[in-house]
Amino acid sequence: MNFKITKGGVTSPKGFKSSGVSTGLKKGNKKDLALVYSKESCNSAGVYTKNRVKGAPLIVTREHLNNSKAQAIIINSGNANTCTGDTGIKNAEEMCSCCADLLELKKEDVLVASTGVIGVQLNIDAIKKSIPDLVNSLSEDEHKNAANAIMTTDTVLKTVSLSFKIGDKTVTIGAMTKGSGMIHPDMATMLAFITTDINISTALLNKALKDSVKVSYNRISVDRDTSTNDMALILANGLAGNPVIDEENQDYQIFSQALNEINITLAKMMAKDGEGATKLVECKVINAPNEHDAEILSKSVICSNLVKTAMFGADANWGRVLDALGYAGVDFDINKLQLSMESSKGTIEVFKNGYPVDFSEDIAKQILSEDEILIIVNMNCGSCIVSSWGCDLTYDYIKINGDYRS
Amino acid sequence: MNFKITKGGVTSPKGFKSSGVSTGLKKGNKKDLALVYSKESCNSAGVYTKNRVKGAPLIVTREHLNNSKAQAIIINSGNANTCTGDTGIKNAEEMCSCCADLLELKKEDVLVASTGVIGVQLNIDAIKKSIPDLVNSLSEDEHKNAANAIMTTDTVLKTVSLSFKIGDKTVTIGAMTKGSGMIHPDMATMLAFITTDINISTALLNKALKDSVKVSYNRISVDRDTSTNDMALILANGLAGNPVIDEENQDYQIFSQALNEINITLAKMMAKDGEGATKLVECKVINAPNEHDAEILSKSVICSNLVKTAMFGADANWGRVLDALGYAGVDFDINKLQLSMESSKGTIEVFKNGYPVDFSEDIAKQILSEDEILIIVNMNCGSCIVSSWGCDLTYDYIKINGDYRS
Repeated sequence: MNFKITKGGVTSPKGFKSSGVSTGLKKGNKKDLALVYSKESCNSAGVYTKNRVKGAPLIVTREHLNNSKAQAIIINSGNANTCTGDTGIKNAEEMCSCCADLLELKKEDVLVASTGVIGVQLNIDAIKKSIPDLVNSLSEDEHKNAANAIMTTDTVLKTVSLSFKIGDKTVTIGAMTKGSGMIHPDMATMLAFITTDINISTALLNKALKDSVKVSYNRISVDRDTSTNDMALILANGLAGNPVIDEENQDYQIFSQALNEINITLAKMMAKDGEGATKLVECKVINAPNEHDAEILSKSVICSNLVKTAMFGADANWGRVLDALGYAGVDFDINKLQLSMESSKGTIEVFKNGYPVDFSEDIAKQILSEDEILIIVNMNCGSCIVSSWGCDLTYDYIKINGDYRS
Repeated sequence: MNFKITKGGVTSPKGFKSSGVSTGLKKGNKKDLALVYSKESCNSAGVYTKNRVKGAPLIVTREHLNNSKAQAIIINSGNANTCTGDTGIKNAEEMCSCCADLLELKKEDVLVASTGVIGVQLNIDAIKKSIPDLVNSLSEDEHKNAANAIMTTDTVLKTVSLSFKIGDKTVTIGAMTKGSGMIHPDMATMLAFITTDINISTALLNKALKDSVKVSYNRISVDRDTSTNDMALILANGLAGNPVIDEENQDYQIFSQALNEINITLAKMMAKDGEGATKLVECKVINAPNEHDAEILSKSVICSNLVKTAMFGADANWGRVLDALGYAGVDFDINKLQLSMESSKGTIEVFKNGYPVDFSEDIAKQILSEDEILIIVNMNCGSCIVSSWGCDLTYDYIKINGDYRS
C-alpha cells in the first residue's frame, strides 16, 4: 500500500490538541514546554531507552502506563531531569499532577518526558508557573508550537501525518519527534510522540509500536551514543470509529505499514538533521542471508566515524566501508560482495568479486556531493534487505558538542 | 618491579638491526619501507586483527609464522595491500622472498606488514627496487629510520626500550609502533614490532604477547574503527644468554611485566597521538566487581564521541560519562557510583550517591585544559581496576579524515 505523508502533526488525528510555551529553561525565550492532549482516554504504549541510567521522567511514565491508558503527555526540553535522585522523580510526578489537575484527569493519565542537560535539578517552579498557560493554549489547529518546544539541537521541525481508510472510516496518524545528537540504535536522545484516532486494542498497539521502532528509530545513528531519556509513545483514542482491531488481521497490517511509514520518515529526518550533519547516509544491505546479519552490517557502516568523515569529504573511500563490514562481527564472503554508492546524480560500483572496480574519481565526487547518499552492500547470498540511516561527521558536530553543555 | 622506559627502539636488544628508506609510495620522498633484522633466528609470535577483512600481508605473515620462527620483518606504509585479491598475496610474498634472497634466509623467515590506503595494488616494482638499499643500510645504531618509515598520520615517533636483569644477564626489549586513526580495541590500524634478546620458549613468548596486548593495545581507542591490517609481532633471539624461560616462573613474570610496561607506554602514546587529538583521556574504573565489567565500562567512556568532544572543550560534562556507562551493557548500582575527573592541575568530584556534586566550573575548566585527563569511575562494589585510553575528538580529526584518502 502506498501512503502519502502530509505536513500535519500530533493534532491531525481527530480529538487531539497540543500547545507549546516558554518557561525560561531554554535561553532566549525559546519554547521549552509542550503538551499533547486527547479529549478521550487513549489506549497507549511506549518503548524506552535500554540505557542502564534512566531519566526520572522515563521511570514515572512507565509507571503511569502500567494500565496502558493515557490522555496527555507533558514534555520539557532544556533539562533531562536525569541523575537527579528522588528529587527528580518527585519533580516529574509534579509535572503530571499539575497538568492533571487543570485537565481534570488523574495524574496517572498524564505521561511525562524531558530532554536536555543531565544532572541538573529541574526548575520545577518555573514549569509549574507555566502549566496554566500551557493548558489554556491547547489547540486543535496548531501542532508546531509543541514540536518547537521539544527541540534541543535540532535545526528543523520534525512533524508528519498521514491518513488511510479502513472500510469507510478515515484513520489518521500524526507524530512529532526531536533528536539530533546522542542518536543511536536502541532509542537515543530522541523523543517520539505519535497520536492516532484508530480504534485498536492495547495489546496490538503495543506490538505495532515495538515492531515499528525496531525498523525505524532503532536503525538510525548520529554518534553511537544512546541516551538516558529516550522514548517513543503512542496514544490511540479510537475516534476514527473503525471496528476495533484486536487481531492481526488486514486492518492491523495496514495500520502497521502506515506506522512504519510515519516512523521511518521521522527517523530519516532525524538522521539527516544529525548534529552538524550536511547529508543523510543510508546503508542498504541487500541479498543478505538473514535480517540479523544484514542489520549488524548495515549499522556498522553508518556508525563508522571514518565512513562518516569520508562522506563529509565526498570521498568514495570504499575501503572504509569494507573495513566497517569486516569488524561488524558477522561472517561474509568477501569474494561475493559487491559495493556501490549512489545518489540522485548516479551510481558507481567500487568493489566486486574480491577486487576493486575502476571508477572515475570525478564522477564519484559529483555523486557523493549530494545531500542524500546510498551505500549499497550486495552480499549475493540470500534475499534479505535492511536499511540503516546515519549522517556525515563534520566540523560542526565538534563545534556543537565541544562547547555546548547539552 | 619498577621498570625504566628508555629512548631506544627495535635495535636496543642485542643482535638486532633496522633500516628505513623511501620508495615513493608516500608522497614527498618520505620514508615508507622499513626492515627489522636479527642476526640469529628468533622465537616469534604474533597477534592479529579480528576484522573479517584481512590484509594480504597479514595472511602471509601468519603463514610464515606457522613454525614460530622468524628473522626479519619488512614493513611498508602508504598502501595497506588489502582487498587486493590474489595479486595482493603474491605481492606480499614477493616482498618477503626478495628480502630473504639478499639476507640469505628462507622466505618463511621474513614476516611482512603493510599500512595505508585500502584497495589499491602495491607498486611492487618500486618496492623491489628499493630492497637492496634497505638491506644495505641495516644498522645497529639507528632505529629511527625504521620507526619513521612505518608512520602514516602519526605525528610523533613511537619507539621505546627498557632493560632488566635476570640473574647476572641483562635482558632488553625494544619496540616501535604506528597508529593514529582507525584505532580501536581488538587491534586497530596499528602495527607493533617488538624485539628482545631474551631466551624464552615460543609457547611462553606467545602467551606473554597475547596477555600483554589484551591490557595495552586492546584498551585504546581513537575512533572505534578497527583495521584490516593490524598486528603486533615479537622476535626474541635469545642473545641475552639467560637460562631459557620455559615455565611460568619468576623470570617469566618479570618479562611479562616488562612487556606490559613497553606495550602500555606505546599504547598511551598512540592514543595521545590519535588523529587530530589534543589530549590523552584515560578512564580508570576502580573497585569493580570483575575485570570484564570494568573493561566494558571503561572502554564505553573513552569511545563516546560526546565524552570525547566534551574533553576537547575542557567541559566537565559528566552526564555524558554516566550516559556512556549506562549504555555499555553492564549492570551497576548508580547509587554507589562515584565519578571524578583529574589532571596534574587537581581533582574534582562530580557525582556521588545518585546525586550531582557541586563543583566550580572554573576549576573544572583549569583541570580539563591539561593534555592528560583521568576520568575515575569508582563502582564501590569490588576490587578490580581497569584503565582504557583514548583521546579527544577535534576539528582536526574531521580535517584529516574528511579529505585524506588514508
